[in-house]
Amino acid sequence: VRKRHVELPEPTLSDDAADLLRLERQIGPFEADLDALRNLATLLRGESFRGTAVLSDHRLIDFERGDTTRQCYGVAFDIGTTTVAGTLVDLNTGEEKAVGACMNPQVRFGDDVLSRIRHASENDEGREELRDSVLSAVGQLVEELCGQAKIVRRNVYEATFAGNTTMQHLLCGLDVEPLGVVPFAPTCARGVAARASQLGLRIHPRAMAYVFPVIGGFVGGDTVAGLLATRLAGGETPSLMVDIGTNGEIVLAHDGKVWAASTAAGPAFEGARIACGMRASRGAIEKIVLDDDLRVSVIGNAPPVGLCGSALVDAVGQLLARGAISPEGRLLQNDELPDSLPEAIRRRITPGENGQGEVLLADGTSAGGGRVVLTQRDIRELQLASGAIRAGITLLLRQAGLEPADLQRVCIAGGFGSFIRRNHAQRIGLIPPGIDHTRIHYVGNVSLKGARWALLSTHARARAEQIARESTHVELSQDFDFQAEFAEAMIFPEPEDAC
Amino acid sequence: VRKRHVELPEPTLSDDAADLLRLERQIGPFEADLDALRNLATLLRGESFRGTAVLSDHRLIDFERGDTTRQCYGVAFDIGTTTVAGTLVDLNTGEEKAVGACMNPQVRFGDDVLSRIRHASENDEGREELRDSVLSAVGQLVEELCGQAKIVRRNVYEATFAGNTTMQHLLCGLDVEPLGVVPFAPTCARGVAARASQLGLRIHPRAMAYVFPVIGGFVGGDTVAGLLATRLAGGETPSLMVDIGTNGEIVLAHDGKVWAASTAAGPAFEGARIACGMRASRGAIEKIVLDDDLRVSVIGNAPPVGLCGSALVDAVGQLLARGAISPEGRLLQNDELPDSLPEAIRRRITPGENGQGEVLLADGTSAGGGRVVLTQRDIRELQLASGAIRAGITLLLRQAGLEPADLQRVCIAGGFGSFIRRNHAQRIGLIPPGIDHTRIHYVGNVSLKGARWALLSTHARARAEQIARESTHVELSQDFDFQAEFAEAMIFPEPEDAC
Repeated sequence: VRKRHVELPEPTLSDDAADLLRLERQIGPFEADLDALRNLATLLRGESFRGTAVLSDHRLIDFERGDTTRQCYGVAFDIGTTTVAGTLVDLNTGEEKAVGACMNPQVRFGDDVLSRIRHASENDEGREELRDSVLSAVGQLVEELCGQAKIVRRNVYEATFAGNTTMQHLLCGLDVEPLGVVPFAPTCARGVAARASQLGLRIHPRAMAYVFPVIGGFVGGDTVAGLLATRLAGGETPSLMVDIGTNGEIVLAHDGKVWAASTAAGPAFEGARIACGMRASRGAIEKIVLDDDLRVSVIGNAPPVGLCGSALVDAVGQLLARGAISPEGRLLQNDELPDSLPEAIRRRITPGENGQGEVLLADGTSAGGGRVVLTQRDIRELQLASGAIRAGITLLLRQAGLEPADLQRVCIAGGFGSFIRRNHAQRIGLIPPGIDHTRIHYVGNVSLKGARWALLSTHARARAEQIARESTHVELSQDFDFQAEFAEAMIFPEPEDAC
Repeated sequence: VRKRHVELPEPTLSDDAADLLRLERQIGPFEADLDALRNLATLLRGESFRGTAVLSDHRLIDFERGDTTRQCYGVAFDIGTTTVAGTLVDLNTGEEKAVGACMNPQVRFGDDVLSRIRHASENDEGREELRDSVLSAVGQLVEELCGQAKIVRRNVYEATFAGNTTMQHLLCGLDVEPLGVVPFAPTCARGVAARASQLGLRIHPRAMAYVFPVIGGFVGGDTVAGLLATRLAGGETPSLMVDIGTNGEIVLAHDGKVWAASTAAGPAFEGARIACGMRASRGAIEKIVLDDDLRVSVIGNAPPVGLCGSALVDAVGQLLARGAISPEGRLLQNDELPDSLPEAIRRRITPGENGQGEVLLADGTSAGGGRVVLTQRDIRELQLASGAIRAGITLLLRQAGLEPADLQRVCIAGGFGSFIRRNHAQRIGLIPPGIDHTRIHYVGNVSLKGARWALLSTHARARAEQIARESTHVELSQDFDFQAEFAEAMIFPEPEDAC
């Protein structure tokens, strides 16, 4: 999208060319949207033939009163199964003017992708319900982002969306039923360019929207956007990207080739299905350090009200290292705990309400804070999530004939906290042992970052389409080796294996 | 628009490509409209991956159950100030399946272009009223054409429109106010490609529409379509096209150049502002022969209820030749009539109700028929209309340095009757004297014909754009020479001048 302020010569009898032609003489040839022309004549004549042309990919979508060239914005979204994140970008400078995130309200129809597909398939209005649901969240985020940046919706001229295949299909109003049955073929793998209004998004009435291309039924546009933003695809040296969301997507790039797979990691890393879990937002414990006691850092320096993914990894990783959690994932009872464990920490470990054991992280005595615990069940959820991802990584490496130690670069992506401690991630077995931990990088929400790039550059979109087209989709759910690997990965690795 | 029936291989684990890609593998690359994809997966899976793809200019707009390749239609319209004509075309064969016409219901807001512009400019809802009005007529015609051809609206995938600049602007919902003031600059001179739904036309929900390019504020898409259909533009020998509607458009082509002008001829040739005037439809007297009496031919062999343009020209032309109308255009009183006039004709000429004189064409005694007269006022209307056109022709010839006798081909276009008698047209001074009458051809509604061509060929559209771009617009209303010519042309030519 670009804007051009113009001052046109007024028509005369000797030059009675059409308004549009006068405009083209100044800014070069373009297509014109009929709706953008409806009041062009009135506006030009009311403003002495001055104003600002708004062009979206060489298509005139509006002509505005005065010089509005500086008000030119776009929005990019990462539509996750559990979390929707968005950013508002100044299209002139590329600057991020506002960011925000919220829960994907579709969770009320089920917390994983398959339950959403089931809801859409089994109910007459299911697909529309899910679509309306995510649209309402996107709409609210747009409102919030515009509020933060103090701009109006009408100055948002473009939107991009990256999400897993099911989320993108639901957003587009496509049929998701085939995504729930073998061989999980999507309707459309290419990126979808549509009018934002066709998607149901209320920004500028003639804004365009771009939804990312996907690699397969379970490796979606979020992964493609992540590959775009990390520049992983196309490299020669073995590199890995692990995008941890409700599903865990794993991509291995090596020797110009790209293999991509998805595992049903579950939403533990995003704080869902965790007793005191929450998104990485104000009040979330994001970091936990165990020394003579257990100390927490809270996002926004606020009283703690829950914990997010990175803190979950910290807690389990360190309790494992201290011997308070067994390799099988059992939180030891008080009389089983190793003597080396400081008394302060030991006191935090109690049988809890249901007698299965829990760890007190915050006692809820600070004003506005809550009681935050880590439960035995939470440990199991993390074990499942990590195990699925580690098994996936092992399988992809095997497919490419590589060992973990061959990996030169490992990017861990996801919106589960400020960052994830590499050693703890390895300790809980999220990443296979044998990888030099200096090669592990936490890269944040690269899906959103890729979506932002696609907002600013058509070259980035072309690259995304190429990445999606050229990547090989590896279907793990039908793979017997994966099942075996998964079972094995369910046991936390031995400490000597970890770095 | 083309349709392709396909049978696709079903997706398997070893070939889990997206539905769209499977389709592209068979029919080549295309863009896809998001709305066309929404039920693609369901439909493919319900029909064993068979069906018919509908492509509009390499864009997938639908996928239909079964083999529907034979049901592929388009509609073309000529939107006149007084009359709207349409045709339904089989896009596979080019065959015309139905034709129809009706009054442009905008006439209730004024019977010429300027009164429509005034209505649109002076009333808040005026522009919308006029748009709704013409759309209702187009919608009814579509309904009627589909009924005639026994097809459903949804199988109409494309529409084209040719009309004068004001009619086209009103149809598109553009501002017409500037078309009413010097220098009459249109918003847009190029052709408009838009979704039919954006125009408000209810055919296939994702059908496209094309509105013709215009040459100037008063030389519109109807003229361009006419030039396309007559292949007049681009020729070397001097040729003339006169399109007679509510406005009379005159185009002179010579030596690769094209000059186009418009005159406010008034709607007389279409039967409007004529006492017993009507469109050239069932019940209209379309031909009049004077021998020992006055004899009429009626369209549809029905009892006469009025007269259309061609009969008006016949009547005045022959009454002039017989001396019953003076060169100044006065219908002589009974005692002034020449002795040579047969008694039967003489008896038809009476002072009429207002004493200004009238000629009885049909006495209304036949069952279902009406009394049809030609009044003094009708003669004045025809005189004005013809005079304006003749003056325009004279001016354009002068501009090109040509004499009437230089013209090798004169095409008279318009929907005012089955055809117009060349000698009568020259007798009433519609066409300047001095043109060999074998060079005069009645070509019918070439605007509609050109619109039909544009429905079938993108090449025709490109040619139309070129014609519009390369033609020179001659603005007569501001020309003093024209005013003088017009005054002179108001007198019927001397008989010896005519052939």
